[in-house]
Amino acid sequence: MADGEKMKSIDEVTAFCKRRGFVFPSCDIYGGLSGFWDFGPVGVELKNNIKSEWWNSFVVRREDVVGVDGSIVNSHAVWKASGHVDGFTDPLLDCKKCKNRVRADQLIEDKLEIPADGMSLEEIDNLVKEKNIKCPNCGGEFGLVHAFNLMFKTFVGPVEDTQNTAYLRPETAQLIFTNFKLVQESSRMKLPFGIAQTGKAFRNEISPRDFVFRSREFEQMELEYFIHPDTINDCPFLDSVSETKISFLTAEAQSTQKTQEKEGKGKKQQKTQEMTIREAVKKGLFKTKWHAYWLATMHNWFTGLGVKAENLRVRQHLEKELSHYSLETWDIEYNFPFGWKEIHGMANRTTFDLTQHSKASGESLTYFDEESKTRITPYVVSEPSQGVERAFLTFIVDAFEVRDGKNVLKIHPKLAPYKAAVFPLVKKDGLPEKARQAFEELLENGLACAFDDKGSIGKRYARHDEIGTPFCITFDSDSLKDNTVTLRDRDTAQQKRVEIEELPLLLLNLISGKKIFSEI
Amino acid sequence: MADGEKMKSIDEVTAFCKRRGFVFPSCDIYGGLSGFWDFGPVGVELKNNIKSEWWNSFVVRREDVVGVDGSIVNSHAVWKASGHVDGFTDPLLDCKKCKNRVRADQLIEDKLEIPADGMSLEEIDNLVKEKNIKCPNCGGEFGLVHAFNLMFKTFVGPVEDTQNTAYLRPETAQLIFTNFKLVQESSRMKLPFGIAQTGKAFRNEISPRDFVFRSREFEQMELEYFIHPDTINDCPFLDSVSETKISFLTAEAQSTQKTQEKEGKGKKQQKTQEMTIREAVKKGLFKTKWHAYWLATMHNWFTGLGVKAENLRVRQHLEKELSHYSLETWDIEYNFPFGWKEIHGMANRTTFDLTQHSKASGESLTYFDEESKTRITPYVVSEPSQGVERAFLTFIVDAFEVRDGKNVLKIHPKLAPYKAAVFPLVKKDGLPEKARQAFEELLENGLACAFDDKGSIGKRYARHDEIGTPFCITFDSDSLKDNTVTLRDRDTAQQKRVEIEELPLLLLNLISGKKIFSEI
Repeated sequence: MADGEKMKSIDEVTAFCKRRGFVFPSCDIYGGLSGFWDFGPVGVELKNNIKSEWWNSFVVRREDVVGVDGSIVNSHAVWKASGHVDGFTDPLLDCKKCKNRVRADQLIEDKLEIPADGMSLEEIDNLVKEKNIKCPNCGGEFGLVHAFNLMFKTFVGPVEDTQNTAYLRPETAQLIFTNFKLVQESSRMKLPFGIAQTGKAFRNEISPRDFVFRSREFEQMELEYFIHPDTINDCPFLDSVSETKISFLTAEAQSTQKTQEKEGKGKKQQKTQEMTIREAVKKGLFKTKWHAYWLATMHNWFTGLGVKAENLRVRQHLEKELSHYSLETWDIEYNFPFGWKEIHGMANRTTFDLTQHSKASGESLTYFDEESKTRITPYVVSEPSQGVERAFLTFIVDAFEVRDGKNVLKIHPKLAPYKAAVFPLVKKDGLPEKARQAFEELLENGLACAFDDKGSIGKRYARHDEIGTPFCITFDSDSLKDNTVTLRDRDTAQQKRVEIEELPLLLLNLISGKKIFSEI
Repeated sequence: MADGEKMKSIDEVTAFCKRRGFVFPSCDIYGGLSGFWDFGPVGVELKNNIKSEWWNSFVVRREDVVGVDGSIVNSHAVWKASGHVDGFTDPLLDCKKCKNRVRADQLIEDKLEIPADGMSLEEIDNLVKEKNIKCPNCGGEFGLVHAFNLMFKTFVGPVEDTQNTAYLRPETAQLIFTNFKLVQESSRMKLPFGIAQTGKAFRNEISPRDFVFRSREFEQMELEYFIHPDTINDCPFLDSVSETKISFLTAEAQSTQKTQEKEGKGKKQQKTQEMTIREAVKKGLFKTKWHAYWLATMHNWFTGLGVKAENLRVRQHLEKELSHYSLETWDIEYNFPFGWKEIHGMANRTTFDLTQHSKASGESLTYFDEESKTRITPYVVSEPSQGVERAFLTFIVDAFEVRDGKNVLKIHPKLAPYKAAVFPLVKKDGLPEKARQAFEELLENGLACAFDDKGSIGKRYARHDEIGTPFCITFDSDSLKDNTVTLRDRDTAQQKRVEIEELPLLLLNLISGKKIFSEI
C-alpha cells in the first residue's frame, strides 16, 4: 500500500484484525460460525477501553445518569409487550426446489437495485412474480414471502413448552424500561434523568455481513433519557454543544435527491449541509432541543476520541423508515470502505415503551411529580444507542494509515490497547533490569504497558505502531549513566530524550491531552 | 439488628440488595424469571469494579497473561468436543402423575440427608425405589431417572434443524481453547503463559437457589495457565506467595471426618488446618507447585480486597467429585449465611482440552518449543475460575455490618460504587456552587463521586454508609472562609478537617492504601 493510504475493503480490515490479534472468526478451528466473532488479546483491550470511555462519559461523570445491567435471557412477556414477538421480523423467501432461504428485501435490492426497506409482504410477492425473481442458488421458484422473527429462542427450565419460551434480548433497551421503577425508587433520581446500559444483544440475521458490522451477536451501549412530558423543549444543556459543527443529511434532502435520481440528475450525490447545532435548531431540524443536544454530544464523543469529523455525517430517518415506537430518529453515519453506514441511532421513543409495559404487566410505571402533585408517565425524548463493534470498526478504520510502507494505527491514546511499550536496547549490562523497573512503575500508575526485548528496535517500533501503542520508550547505554530514555511518538515517529523518573506523569499528561508531544 | 451484627440469611441479603439498588429480580414487573437477576445503579458499578480489579490484577499487570473475549453462542462442534453435549447433565425425575420435574440428587440430599453428588443414575433409581421417595408436589410416583443437559439450546440461521443447533456457552473456558492457536500466534506469547476471559455463561439449572449464588445466567472470570508439560514443578513465582496463610480442608481430612460422622463422632466439625503455602507445599498437599502458587494468588486477591481471611477456606475435591478433565481441583470457599460454599474453583486440566479440540477439529493445537525444536501440546496446570456474582455476594456479605442500629457496607474503597460523596450543608450562600466545583474536580481526577444536597447530613451519611461510599465530604460556612471541609471516614465515622485543594490526591491515596485515614 502507498503512503497515507487507508484500508480499501472490509476484507482488508478483517485480515488485519485477525493477523494482529484484534478479532478472530468465532469457532475458527471448526470452520467458523457465521455472524459470530471473538476478540483477541489487543482487541479485547480496545473494546474494553471503548466501553469504559463511554460509561465514564455518560454514567460516571454525569449526575443525571445511572446505569443498570440486565439479563440477556428474558421472558416471553417482555418481548411480547415491546412488540418484538410480533413485529421484529425480516421477510424471507423459501425456494420450493432446493429449500434455500433468502432475505427477500436484500435479494430485491441486489437484483433490481431499488430500496426494499419497509416494503410490505404483498409488495414483495408482487415484485417477485412480476420481475420473475428466482432462487440464486438453483434457479428454482420461490414460495410466498413470510415474516421471520430475528430473536433467538430458547427454553428455561426442564420443560420445552410455550410457557417456558424465552428469548435472547435483541436490544438492551427493554431491560431499562422493565427496571425503570426499581431504578428510580432505589436511586431517587429526579426528572430529567437517564438510565444507561451496555451489554450483549443477539439477532438471528439471515445474512450477516461486513465483518463485525452486521453480526448475530454484538454488544450495545444504550441510554434512555427520561423527561417530564411538559418539558420537551427545556434542555438546559444545549448551550454546551451549540457550536458543534455537523454535516446533516435531512429527510428533505434525501427525498429531493431521490426525485432527482429518478429524473436522471445528480445521481448518488449526498446533499449534506454543514452547520452548527445552534443553526440546526434555529432551522427547526429537530422536533425537540433534547434531541439536538444528545446528537451533538454523541457526535462529540466520537470526534473527542479522534474520529475525523469529515468522515461523519448525521442522517435523518425518512418517515417510512421510522420504527413503530419512534417520533423522530437520527443516525450518526461513518464513511466506511463499504459506504456510509449507521454507527449510532437516536430515536425519540416518547412514552411508548413505559406505557406498553405498564399495560402488559399491570404495574404502574409512572413518576410522582412533586410540583404538580400528580403521577406522570416519563417521556423518552432521546435514546442514544450504538453498537460497541461498530464503534470498534470506526476507530480502527479511521485510525489506520500507511507510513513508509508500514501500517500505523493512529488510534486515540485513551483507546489504545497499550499506552506505552518499554524496550531495553540490548539484553545485557543490567539494561533489561533497569527497563523492567520503569515498566513496573508505569503499571503501578495504572498505565497498561508492554515490555518487549525481542528483535531489532525498528521491528519493535513497527509491531507497536501496527497495534496502536502511542509511545515507545527505549533504554540504551546512556540510560545507565544519566537516567534518561528515548521517548518516541507513534504518530510522528519523533523522538525526545526524557528523564526516567518523569515518565509516569508525562505519559498520563500525554494520554489525557494535557500535554502535546511536540511541546515537551 | 444489633450492633456488629452480620446478615443472617440469604433472604436478608436479597432484600437489602433490591432496596438499595444493587440487584433486582429480572423481569420483576412480569413476576420475575427464576434464576435471572438484573444489576441496579450501585450494583452495576460494584460489579464493574470487581471485574476491572480482576482484569487489572491478572491481565493488564501481568506480562505472562493476555485476554480474549469470545462469543456466547457457539456451534455444536465446540461443546461436543469438550464433552458437554454428552456429559454436562443433572439427574432428573419426572412425576408420573403431576408431570413435576425435580433434580434427583437434590431431592435425595433433602429427604435422606446424604450426599448424592456423583451418584450414578442406577444408584439413584435404586434409592428412590428402596426408600419409597415420592413427588414432593403431589405424592405421585416417579418414572426412571434421566440425564438432563444443562446447556441452553438455540438455532442459528433461518432453519431449525440439528445442523444449525447452537448452545449458549455453559463456561467461558472452551473459547480460550478454541482460540489458543490464534492467540498464541498473534501475541507471540512464550510458555509459560495464561489466557484470561471474563463474560457471561448460562446453565439451565433445574432449581436455581440462593439469590445470585446459583443462577441460570452468570458471569465468569477465568484464566487458563499453559505450561510446557516438562515444567510442572518449575513455578518461578512461588516465593512471592510462600508466606500466605490459608485454612486448608484436604480430601484426607474430609474422608476422616465422614468416617467419624458415620461412627457418630465429631459430626459437622470441619477439620481445617491453617498453614502457609510454604508448609503446604512441603507437606505435599499439591500435585504441582503451580497450583499452590495460583491458589494463594487468588486467595490473596480476595483478602487484598478486604475479605476477612477467617471467612475463607480452601477445600480439596474428593476423588469422586473431580470433573472428567481434572487431575486435581481445589476450591476457595466462603462462609455464607447458608454455609461454606465455593466462590472459586481451580482445576488442573492437563492437556485434555487442547487434545480434544485438536482431535475433533483436525487442527494442530500445539506449540513450537524452540529449545527442543519440537511441537508439544501445552499443559493447563491451573485454571483459576470464579463467578463474578459469587465474588459480588462475598464482598457484600463480608462487608456488611450494623452500627448504631444502621447498616454500614464496609466494602474496599477500590470496589465501592462511589469513592466519595460531596454534601453542601445548606442550599444557600454559594455553598452548593463551591461544593459542586470540588465535585467536578474529583470527577476530573477519575474518581466516581456522588453529589447530594437533600435531607439532613445525618441522613446523607446513613444513605452513603449503606451503599459503601468510603468518604463523605461536607461543605459548611467555614468552607467559604478558609477553604476547608469535613472529611468523614465510613468505617470509623471519624471526621477530619482538610483543605479543599488537597482532596483529589488525598482521596486517591486513601483509596489505593498509600495513606490511612487515622494518620492524615
